[in-house]
Amino acid sequence: MKTVFSPVQLAHDPKHEISDGMLKPAVEIPSRAEIVRARILETGFGDVLPPDEFGLEPIARVHAGDYIAFLEGFWTRWTNAGRSGEAFPFVWPVRELRTKPVPDHIDGLLGRYSFDAGTPLGEETWVAARASADTALTAARLVAGGDRAAFALCRPPGHHAHADFYGGYCFLNNAAIAAQYLRDAGADRVAVLDVDYHHGNGTQAIFYDRADVLFLSLHADPIEEFPYFLGHADETGEGAGEGFNANFPLALGTDWPAFSRALDAALERVAEFSPDTLVVSLGLDTYERDPISKFRLKSEEFLALGARLEKAGLPTVFVMEGGYAVDALGVNCVNVLSGFEGA
Amino acid sequence: MKTVFSPVQLAHDPKHEISDGMLKPAVEIPSRAEIVRARILETGFGDVLPPDEFGLEPIARVHAGDYIAFLEGFWTRWTNAGRSGEAFPFVWPVRELRTKPVPDHIDGLLGRYSFDAGTPLGEETWVAARASADTALTAARLVAGGDRAAFALCRPPGHHAHADFYGGYCFLNNAAIAAQYLRDAGADRVAVLDVDYHHGNGTQAIFYDRADVLFLSLHADPIEEFPYFLGHADETGEGAGEGFNANFPLALGTDWPAFSRALDAALERVAEFSPDTLVVSLGLDTYERDPISKFRLKSEEFLALGARLEKAGLPTVFVMEGGYAVDALGVNCVNVLSGFEGA
Ligand SMILES: [Zn+2]
Ligand SMILES: [Zn+2]
Repeated sequence: MKTVFSPVQLAHDPKHEISDGMLKPAVEIPSRAEIVRARILETGFGDVLPPDEFGLEPIARVHAGDYIAFLEGFWTRWTNAGRSGEAFPFVWPVRELRTKPVPDHIDGLLGRYSFDAGTPLGEETWVAARASADTALTAARLVAGGDRAAFALCRPPGHHAHADFYGGYCFLNNAAIAAQYLRDAGADRVAVLDVDYHHGNGTQAIFYDRADVLFLSLHADPIEEFPYFLGHADETGEGAGEGFNANFPLALGTDWPAFSRALDAALERVAEFSPDTLVVSLGLDTYERDPISKFRLKSEEFLALGARLEKAGLPTVFVMEGGYAVDALGVNCVNVLSGFEGA
Repeated sequence: MKTVFSPVQLAHDPKHEISDGMLKPAVEIPSRAEIVRARILETGFGDVLPPDEFGLEPIARVHAGDYIAFLEGFWTRWTNAGRSGEAFPFVWPVRELRTKPVPDHIDGLLGRYSFDAGTPLGEETWVAARASADTALTAARLVAGGDRAAFALCRPPGHHAHADFYGGYCFLNNAAIAAQYLRDAGADRVAVLDVDYHHGNGTQAIFYDRADVLFLSLHADPIEEFPYFLGHADETGEGAGEGFNANFPLALGTDWPAFSRALDAALERVAEFSPDTLVVSLGLDTYERDPISKFRLKSEEFLALGARLEKAGLPTVFVMEGGYAVDALGVNCVNVLSGFEGA
């Protein structure tokens, strides 16, 4: 299968993140994408293509206009306010606090359009996030055009981004943008299967009231793990979307046998739904040595994950999400893709 | 008038806060209370009494039981999780994200029960916050018992704390707890007037649907200033509380003439309401040299503020809130109180 990659994505190069009351070295860093790209080239896995530019329209099909305008204009506002360096929000409109009117002040705006304190927003974030969305869109177009599968080597990742707020290292929801693109390109039904260690809260929320996009997520139980506030088994969709959302929260320490049982259950739901296309939110932070995660998948087990996904028998768009054990990320990621091709 | 003060409040001694992506020296520090106490003693303003202990019951009249239990048990959980030092949350349940089920993980709990990243929670926070609430309750009891006025020298402050979340350096809403105590002690109507530079979002939210407690706040326009997401003029109460909330957002740079016009308007509303008792959330961060604020009140103008409050002719409980120009805080605070007494 073809890989889509843009080096423009590397421009988003955060130095720090805030967690546990400290500035720590950022973990969502450019080398994550570079090592995957290097592994693809080194193994001769397939062609690596640059993305085409799709403009803002397919992004605006998923994200709110005011949110897009905020991201686009952020750096100018930030520097006009006399600030420099990476921006972190520090106050959020929870519960009785209002989302409207939208504040004018840059610190109010940062909180209005985010849900965490750990996601640095910098000068190059917007251009990189757009390139990441274009990467997903180009892979989706390859599959819409007849390719059995394509791999969008996206960065920054996307699945934690909601329609109008960022967080969890994510700004534009690449998988959601790709799924919507596939619908607009003629697919009647699209399934998004998220196998990242963390719940795909943004993707779920974006499609929660829709029956045309089935969202399924395997992830660490949010009672114990980020994003904490979404991803429970009782979230099954609402309105027209009732029955078209399925979460598989798993215990910390989950290994491949337990993970693959949940995967089988999720793929059964996919089969019942009978989508035209499958989008896989491909996080590799289920890996046993991931520095911020607590599942126990081994490198060779990612081959089995890929093979199992192939058995769904669907045109498949892989969209890269998390994975922070950088030294093993190339091997693990390409193992999924090779497992799919070799199945 | 008598001052109530407990040195236990000094135990909450934060070292840092997070703002603008950096750990900065904390501004809500013990010396804030010490300098006010010193000024009261030095000027012979009146007796300084320790608070009585009221237990959890009057706190639970205002705050949710699970929130109280979280604050009370926090340090044990934090240290059991292998953590130490000050705690800062980093992810919040905004919009589609859920407040229930409540996470088990300490980082999820911190976000579940807060709304900002800048309020350090430490080993002694709970004991200090309780002493601060007892301080407000003791002053309220003095006034309920016939004193014309009393001053609760509270710290940490309270007016940003909602029924079930903390933030803005506030954990327990001392003014709300005092107002509720006065109601329970027999007052039919209580007015809470907040003259801190920042909107009293927590107090507003706690009484928003009630007609028995009128809340009024003079503050920097939240479009431009913390807390950003509450404090607009169109917030007039809801349900039975419709018409019993009044905000006076003021422009950055507001000086005494403009501030006092808004104060007159607010006190007109108080007079129409005809309460049995007035609670004043007394922030001194309207001062021209406050390091985090942008109003322009001069030290001598706080005398006029106190005199104007006296003219309302009501039994009055002063509850200390913000004010971060520590060197001038004692003078400014005692000026308000002396202005009231000397009017
Ligand atoms: Zn992840
Ligand atoms: Zn204040």
